[in-house]
Amino acid sequence: MEGHDSQLMHRAMADTLDRVIADIRGIQSSARTTGNFQRPRWPMIVLRSPKGWTGPKVADGKEVEGTFRSHQVPLSNPAANPQHLPQLEAWMRSYRPEELFDTGGKLRAEIADLAPKGTRRMSANPHANGGELLRDLILPDFRKYAVAVTTRGQKAIGDTRVMAPFLRDVITLNESQRNFRVFGPDETISNGLGAVFEVTNRQWQGDVVAGDEFLAQDGRVLEMLSEHQCEGWLEGYLLTGRHGLFNCYEAFIHIVDSMFNQHAKWLKVTNHLKWRHKIASLNYLLASHVWRQDHNGFTHQDPGFVDVVVNKKAEVVRVYMPPDANCLLSVTDHCLRSKQYVNVIVAGKHPSPQWLSMDEAVRHCTAGIGEWEWAGHKGDDPDVVMACCGDVPTLETLAAVSILREHLPELRIRVVNIVDLMKLQPPKEHPHGLNDEEFDAFFTRNKPVIFAFHAYPWTIHRLTYRRTNHDNIHVRGYKEEGTITTPFDMTVLNDMDRFHLAMDAIERLPQTGEKGARVKSMLAEKLREHRRYITTHGEDMPEVRGWTWKA
Amino acid sequence: MEGHDSQLMHRAMADTLDRVIADIRGIQSSARTTGNFQRPRWPMIVLRSPKGWTGPKVADGKEVEGTFRSHQVPLSNPAANPQHLPQLEAWMRSYRPEELFDTGGKLRAEIADLAPKGTRRMSANPHANGGELLRDLILPDFRKYAVAVTTRGQKAIGDTRVMAPFLRDVITLNESQRNFRVFGPDETISNGLGAVFEVTNRQWQGDVVAGDEFLAQDGRVLEMLSEHQCEGWLEGYLLTGRHGLFNCYEAFIHIVDSMFNQHAKWLKVTNHLKWRHKIASLNYLLASHVWRQDHNGFTHQDPGFVDVVVNKKAEVVRVYMPPDANCLLSVTDHCLRSKQYVNVIVAGKHPSPQWLSMDEAVRHCTAGIGEWEWAGHKGDDPDVVMACCGDVPTLETLAAVSILREHLPELRIRVVNIVDLMKLQPPKEHPHGLNDEEFDAFFTRNKPVIFAFHAYPWTIHRLTYRRTNHDNIHVRGYKEEGTITTPFDMTVLNDMDRFHLAMDAIERLPQTGEKGARVKSMLAEKLREHRRYITTHGEDMPEVRGWTWKA
Repeated sequence: MEGHDSQLMHRAMADTLDRVIADIRGIQSSARTTGNFQRPRWPMIVLRSPKGWTGPKVADGKEVEGTFRSHQVPLSNPAANPQHLPQLEAWMRSYRPEELFDTGGKLRAEIADLAPKGTRRMSANPHANGGELLRDLILPDFRKYAVAVTTRGQKAIGDTRVMAPFLRDVITLNESQRNFRVFGPDETISNGLGAVFEVTNRQWQGDVVAGDEFLAQDGRVLEMLSEHQCEGWLEGYLLTGRHGLFNCYEAFIHIVDSMFNQHAKWLKVTNHLKWRHKIASLNYLLASHVWRQDHNGFTHQDPGFVDVVVNKKAEVVRVYMPPDANCLLSVTDHCLRSKQYVNVIVAGKHPSPQWLSMDEAVRHCTAGIGEWEWAGHKGDDPDVVMACCGDVPTLETLAAVSILREHLPELRIRVVNIVDLMKLQPPKEHPHGLNDEEFDAFFTRNKPVIFAFHAYPWTIHRLTYRRTNHDNIHVRGYKEEGTITTPFDMTVLNDMDRFHLAMDAIERLPQTGEKGARVKSMLAEKLREHRRYITTHGEDMPEVRGWTWKA
Repeated sequence: MEGHDSQLMHRAMADTLDRVIADIRGIQSSARTTGNFQRPRWPMIVLRSPKGWTGPKVADGKEVEGTFRSHQVPLSNPAANPQHLPQLEAWMRSYRPEELFDTGGKLRAEIADLAPKGTRRMSANPHANGGELLRDLILPDFRKYAVAVTTRGQKAIGDTRVMAPFLRDVITLNESQRNFRVFGPDETISNGLGAVFEVTNRQWQGDVVAGDEFLAQDGRVLEMLSEHQCEGWLEGYLLTGRHGLFNCYEAFIHIVDSMFNQHAKWLKVTNHLKWRHKIASLNYLLASHVWRQDHNGFTHQDPGFVDVVVNKKAEVVRVYMPPDANCLLSVTDHCLRSKQYVNVIVAGKHPSPQWLSMDEAVRHCTAGIGEWEWAGHKGDDPDVVMACCGDVPTLETLAAVSILREHLPELRIRVVNIVDLMKLQPPKEHPHGLNDEEFDAFFTRNKPVIFAFHAYPWTIHRLTYRRTNHDNIHVRGYKEEGTITTPFDMTVLNDMDRFHLAMDAIERLPQTGEKGARVKSMLAEKLREHRRYITTHGEDMPEVRGWTWKA
């Protein structure tokens, strides 16, 4: 389609659209009647019309219509420029307002009648208001996928690997609704979600060669090694009334920061439009995270997507860092039921310790934050709070607590675990926020808090700076130190390992006196021993690899 | 190039490379001798070889070589799997180590001799160690582009528009070195940098049509409406020993978050490699910023790139928010001289007030932070500190100070302006950081600080939470409120306007008593008046549009 005569172009466009729609219907009908799902050659219209078509032809002596000058405001200053005003008038009159409006300035009825009616109106068309088409997912009971935790700290196969059969069954249960998809770069298996391929495939219209696995013309998984494409697909899928989950390496989700920003802004604005129905939440599962990129190295370590996310309006963003598989199951179920949010879930895929029974996990995730009384000392008056958020920080915190309990048994330690990061913000900043009394009940008003955090440590300060005890909160997290090394060394390089955490606590507890100083110097030696051991053996010390929680 | 017989493929690859290099030399020679700069069809090699070529053919009964299974680790567990170990041995032996190493396990001299020598070694090739090729830019004296500030607060043509002739002359002075380029989406003119086109063009090998401007086969500006492409071009340009500046809309620089992350990580790592020479800094000029996106609306408002930047290692990141054109000139000069950093400069393009003479600007920018004694009350014991960082926050702060000085003249107000954001961090977190005594000297130890900030307010808390007076720092900034409205209303929607800032101060100054309460209620009425006025007139109140600083 190319031209500049508007009457000829109108006719040609109408003819082209008719032809294209006939082509599309032909392809659909062929697929539906003959079962030919070969990738069709969908029609594409290329329209080339003059830029700024029908606008001012010339302004200030320079060509405008058909040139780059018509890009923004072709007549820059009609209020002050005596030449621009008549040009503006002539331009506006070229639309022949006398044919469109009656003498009172009202749109003529026969013109108004041309507009589509009912659901053919742009904003009322359910395809543009996807919430109207939204049907809740049919979800299996996530509890039945639980790890049976008989011993606290027992290792499971990897948190996402435990959760994957739940996703698999979500796919099966919604097969007839056809309204759930899993999106991701080529990492669905690598992220531990391979179980979905027991019941579905990657949708794939390209060639299939011998040996390919899980590729089919129909499948509920969409993979392409382009985070942009995955995000765009998912946003379109949600906006048209369906549900989905985007699984991605944590560091590389930054690729879609800008797309996330726009989606979050869209959600915020539509929250205040009554006629817009809610759509399903945009769910991110960041399953290959900063602490276990030891074989990929520094390039794969960036937990900062959370910082981009929490810049957006609190009413639309949620961040979850489940400490184990049962918590991941509970959180995933919650996110798939939710609407009109962006949910970020960070979870590991490597075998790691399991802490909570399913009943405990449900209670913990529903609260979003909890004291783990079994790990510390019950009671109102702890000497120190050991807080953790994220799977690896939870492991290191509990290992640090073990050290402190063994060597300084007189210390009263409170262990607090955070699943829902937004619990830390004041309630006037985020609807999930604890009020100050609740916050103080966990973190005390004046005791040291050693906080091991999954992402950048300053994120915790940013969320908690208004709290009573903020000055005593000491956070460890990722601080851009990492390379290709052992898993435990990743935590050591960032001072978030069990030895550093225990030393951090002792430093803030002068009452531990000389005994504390001796424990500290033992821990400093442990760090040197760690360094020597991994340099020699290329793997972590047996006492680290084989560490288990002693009840 | 396609095949699987390695001997045939080696020969064919060598032939192909010879042919391709001859083609490239032919194109270059034709351009250099005949002056034919038409876009050539550069050769491209498409190589298709089996994936995992020469690795294990089959593992665990499944094909590996030539399939997706060879993507990561084809033999997963030779230490424990008795079938994998002999396979691994056979694979390793296929490289015929007995021909490569002598009986002592040392690489044979004739093999070692095949490696390139001197600067042909990969790491020693200056094209891969661009710092070796780096030549300092020849810079004009930035002072000669100064706005002559005869009255504080006088309006200039727009800060980037004042600075643009400096960039223009950088281009001219380095024309023969050919080592400076300006990169950006199609916004170099829109960002106020049009003056560069007085001496150069956009480099453009495509078709040129009548009416096109500033397109030529040779030019120092590279534009493409792809932030990714601009970032990639600039990184490559810097890594090969040249200098550049990327101008971009602030909200859309998030598009390259992930690319920035990798460049910053590269800088951090290479800082610790002695053989790597320093390269020129990556300079961002974010010139169409959140506070003046009033006609573009909410989608164009996101000042959060700074949060991504300050997550990276302090040794490589710098953030500057010059309050006026003379400061922008000073900061730009500094950034173009610097090496091995990422510099982010945020500046406006709209006519805005000028505060400092060039001498004052140089002193202010060199310090990075300063008390503006002319705007407040000299002396050691202020009642309140009014702090500002960014051009629009500075304007609103000074307008708020005017209000307070007029209505509550007995108040002692200190005005502090921040150019270099990293001054706020503790020195152990960032090399630019003020020490605590210096910080307290600006912000006091116990007086209220009303801080108007260009970006998200919590960024300031994150930088200052360790400071003595942090509990009294009250920050206003962008909090995701915005739409298509007037420029001043943008600040009102985010509570960062002069009226809110003055009210914020009064609220924290109980000594203003009943008089303060009356001023507050007058200001609240001003905000209602503003709302009524813009709803009726579609532009800001005359007293806002026409506001000037009274000395």
